[in-house]
Amino acid sequence: MQTVEYSLGELAARFGLELRGDPDLRVQRVATLHHAAPGGISFFANARYRKHLEATQATAVVLAAEHAALCPAAALIDPNPYLAYARIAGVLHPTAVSPPGIHDSAVVGASARIAASASVGPQAVIEDGVDIGERVFVGPGCILQQGARIGADTRLTARVTVCRNVEVGERCILHPGVVIGADGFGFALDGARGWVKVPQMGAVRIGNDVEIGANTTVDCGAIEDTVIENGVKLDNQIQIGHNVSIGEHTAIASCTGISGSTSIGKRCMIGGLVGMAGHLTIADDVVITGFSMISASLKRPGSYSSGIPAEETKQWWRRVAQFRRLGARKE
Amino acid sequence: MQTVEYSLGELAARFGLELRGDPDLRVQRVATLHHAAPGGISFFANARYRKHLEATQATAVVLAAEHAALCPAAALIDPNPYLAYARIAGVLHPTAVSPPGIHDSAVVGASARIAASASVGPQAVIEDGVDIGERVFVGPGCILQQGARIGADTRLTARVTVCRNVEVGERCILHPGVVIGADGFGFALDGARGWVKVPQMGAVRIGNDVEIGANTTVDCGAIEDTVIENGVKLDNQIQIGHNVSIGEHTAIASCTGISGSTSIGKRCMIGGLVGMAGHLTIADDVVITGFSMISASLKRPGSYSSGIPAEETKQWWRRVAQFRRLGARKE
Amino acid sequence: MQTVEYSLGELAARFGLELRGDPDLRVQRVATLHHAAPGGISFFANARYRKHLEATQATAVVLAAEHAALCPAAALIDPNPYLAYARIAGVLHPTAVSPPGIHDSAVVGASARIAASASVGPQAVIEDGVDIGERVFVGPGCILQQGARIGADTRLTARVTVCRNVEVGERCILHPGVVIGADGFGFALDGARGWVKVPQMGAVRIGNDVEIGANTTVDCGAIEDTVIENGVKLDNQIQIGHNVSIGEHTAIASCTGISGSTSIGKRCMIGGLVGMAGHLTIADDVVITGFSMISASLKRPGSYSSGIPAEETKQWWRRVAQFRRLGARKE
Repeated sequence: MQTVEYSLGELAARFGLELRGDPDLRVQRVATLHHAAPGGISFFANARYRKHLEATQATAVVLAAEHAALCPAAALIDPNPYLAYARIAGVLHPTAVSPPGIHDSAVVGASARIAASASVGPQAVIEDGVDIGERVFVGPGCILQQGARIGADTRLTARVTVCRNVEVGERCILHPGVVIGADGFGFALDGARGWVKVPQMGAVRIGNDVEIGANTTVDCGAIEDTVIENGVKLDNQIQIGHNVSIGEHTAIASCTGISGSTSIGKRCMIGGLVGMAGHLTIADDVVITGFSMISASLKRPGSYSSGIPAEETKQWWRRVAQFRRLGARKE
Repeated sequence: MQTVEYSLGELAARFGLELRGDPDLRVQRVATLHHAAPGGISFFANARYRKHLEATQATAVVLAAEHAALCPAAALIDPNPYLAYARIAGVLHPTAVSPPGIHDSAVVGASARIAASASVGPQAVIEDGVDIGERVFVGPGCILQQGARIGADTRLTARVTVCRNVEVGERCILHPGVVIGADGFGFALDGARGWVKVPQMGAVRIGNDVEIGANTTVDCGAIEDTVIENGVKLDNQIQIGHNVSIGEHTAIASCTGISGSTSIGKRCMIGGLVGMAGHLTIADDVVITGFSMISASLKRPGSYSSGIPAEETKQWWRRVAQFRRLGARKE
Repeated sequence: MQTVEYSLGELAARFGLELRGDPDLRVQRVATLHHAAPGGISFFANARYRKHLEATQATAVVLAAEHAALCPAAALIDPNPYLAYARIAGVLHPTAVSPPGIHDSAVVGASARIAASASVGPQAVIEDGVDIGERVFVGPGCILQQGARIGADTRLTARVTVCRNVEVGERCILHPGVVIGADGFGFALDGARGWVKVPQMGAVRIGNDVEIGANTTVDCGAIEDTVIENGVKLDNQIQIGHNVSIGEHTAIASCTGISGSTSIGKRCMIGGLVGMAGHLTIADDVVITGFSMISASLKRPGSYSSGIPAEETKQWWRRVAQFRRLGARKE
């Protein structure tokens, strides 16, 4: 991250915020309320940090109007202070721009097409037929297999694997260890002779503004494609099975697994360690809390759960014993 | 995938299928019932796609005899249409053959033995004492550490890590991000001084016809070896602990974790996000549904479960409260 | 692993063990009780292997005094035989020392500082500003991004990714596929326009003697750092969210996910497939059994659980039905 400097007046004007304080004060970096020093800008969005707000050394704080009176520093006021903070942080700490060009140690197929403004890092492998758009960053150790296409301004941070014919949109971010388009898990049982592989011939199509966390895997489709729509955000170590589709702006937390052919709607929020069976339909605007098992379609928006919070182990086992006695009753 | 063309007569003869239709019709590719165009061959194995069958534009459909009357196209009839489809797809879409040879950018140890028919891709690392069999494909970015052995016709698709002395059989497929033979999780507690590492000196032995999904990890044994038998199929992001053994033709879905020294029988089917404790014995022919916790050995074949499906969050929390009241009763 | 030879007298003296047997007997390798041959040394720490002890061909066995009478071989006696065994295995099977130097195929930034005693393997990438300490091993395919610092005697076994400004202590071991310091999962919702990325600007600080298993991910902090203290042991495929802190000597088993800003105490033992919500505080000396959901802080030491063991599927569904009827009662 590079660091730049803005006056509070510039930030207020740029993001449409109300400023209470000196517009000529300047900030160089974001900071937590607790550890901020002069030159830092912080945000207040959680009531339990009120004491930190009252004692902060930040030059400015982004917060809602109703908390402005508590703020000992300049206040930038917005009804959604976390969102305003995100935008300010984005301009104060812009992503470093990599110089265009292809590192000497990268291996590039003869028929690959790489935009002149793109950057391809050391030890990368770009196979034949790959298409890399303007200002794309292909970090060290990335592998792009035949026919993969990467849209403008997308960043593959390091060691990302993009398999054959996968299409990634614009302004996406894929983190290290991500694998897009490996074979789905498809086998037909031939009795005692075991499993026969079902060829996995589809691709993966990823929209614009998608972010995919470290070591997450998205399998290619069996016949047709696996689809991740615009604005989807996937955390680390998520597994997306073949022919899954995920609607716009859905966010999924880490360690969740989505089985094949399940279709998830738009604007869903899915917690961590959720397990979802295959061939389900999840409506738009569904929230699923962490550690839930989803074994049937969810056809209406709403919030769904099935995890049971832990208790002391002895107490827990008493409950499990009771649960089993219950199930043993005559029905 | 390369594409080739077959007549229906050739396919019927090759796979022992009954053909109802013109044996000279030709197909070039598989397709879903819904999206098939002329030249496509599809399959019907799930009653809920009956309308798609009746309207399909496919040139031919693989299905069971009892559904042949519904089929508007040529019919290839088999009691297990999905299996017959898998075989046909395999011949219509064969895996591309990579030209033999070692890419200039690969680093190969002086004492490594690589069959002349094998293909070693760019940026690969083959350490000393590695043995690579006939027609093996070592994809870009793969790392084979000292003494690893890879059997004939096995494919390491890309960025696979095979640690020291690991043995992989013939016709296996290992997907990107797979790590075979990293240290198991073994430590002895030295009171307040913390953990002392227990050296992990075993290897991993993988049989023939094993497929291992993206980012799955199989740890080396502590003293003796971790063993994956012939025909085992592991999905993505599975964790196999040290000294686990998995019997022939067992299939495990994604995100499941098997703790150390557990022994799993033959022909088991284990769902996704299953957690299995260590030192257990799981019989042959056990089925475990997704999201189950296995904390004791399962000595008889059969189907086992413990996940509770999600409900609306408010309703769910009422149940949890009731469950706790129940456990609080006098026993 | 290299192998060396010790006499029982030397081992007893070095580790303060009582020897019952000939001090001049020599051992070259560890072995299980069941498969040991002469020259092998084994341990007995689990009563169910008593028959194997009584029949062992090992030259020596490490065990507790109360079992010495059962031992047909020389006995090395310690109240914690598994710990004594771990230490003996460490000297019999020391980690191979890699010759210092930088492989020709590695790419090293002009301003990187690499100790002369360090070893950098093939296809590694060391960016500008990286600092690599004495005797560090950077295995094949590792990527160290700008400003990363690696303490003395640490081993990155292969294909480890260490992102910007991450600090790793001394004597750590990071296994293949590990990703340290990728962006945390931070987004602010901008209504129907979707998610706005919150820049992730913190680093990760890892103490000394930390081991991190294959494909585990530790995210960088949002503003301040994610912290892993001395002696922490993380198994494979664990996810550690941004701004988590983990206290000294805590051990976590595979497939567990810890959400952002949660603080875990010292000397905790956390099982596999545990899901932990964000912003929690877990006390020192907490034990959490596998497959538990932790959605509230645990402020006292003790053991906590919430997984329910699997049963036969039909029986299980009867219980789930009963559970739901229960929740439906008037309250």
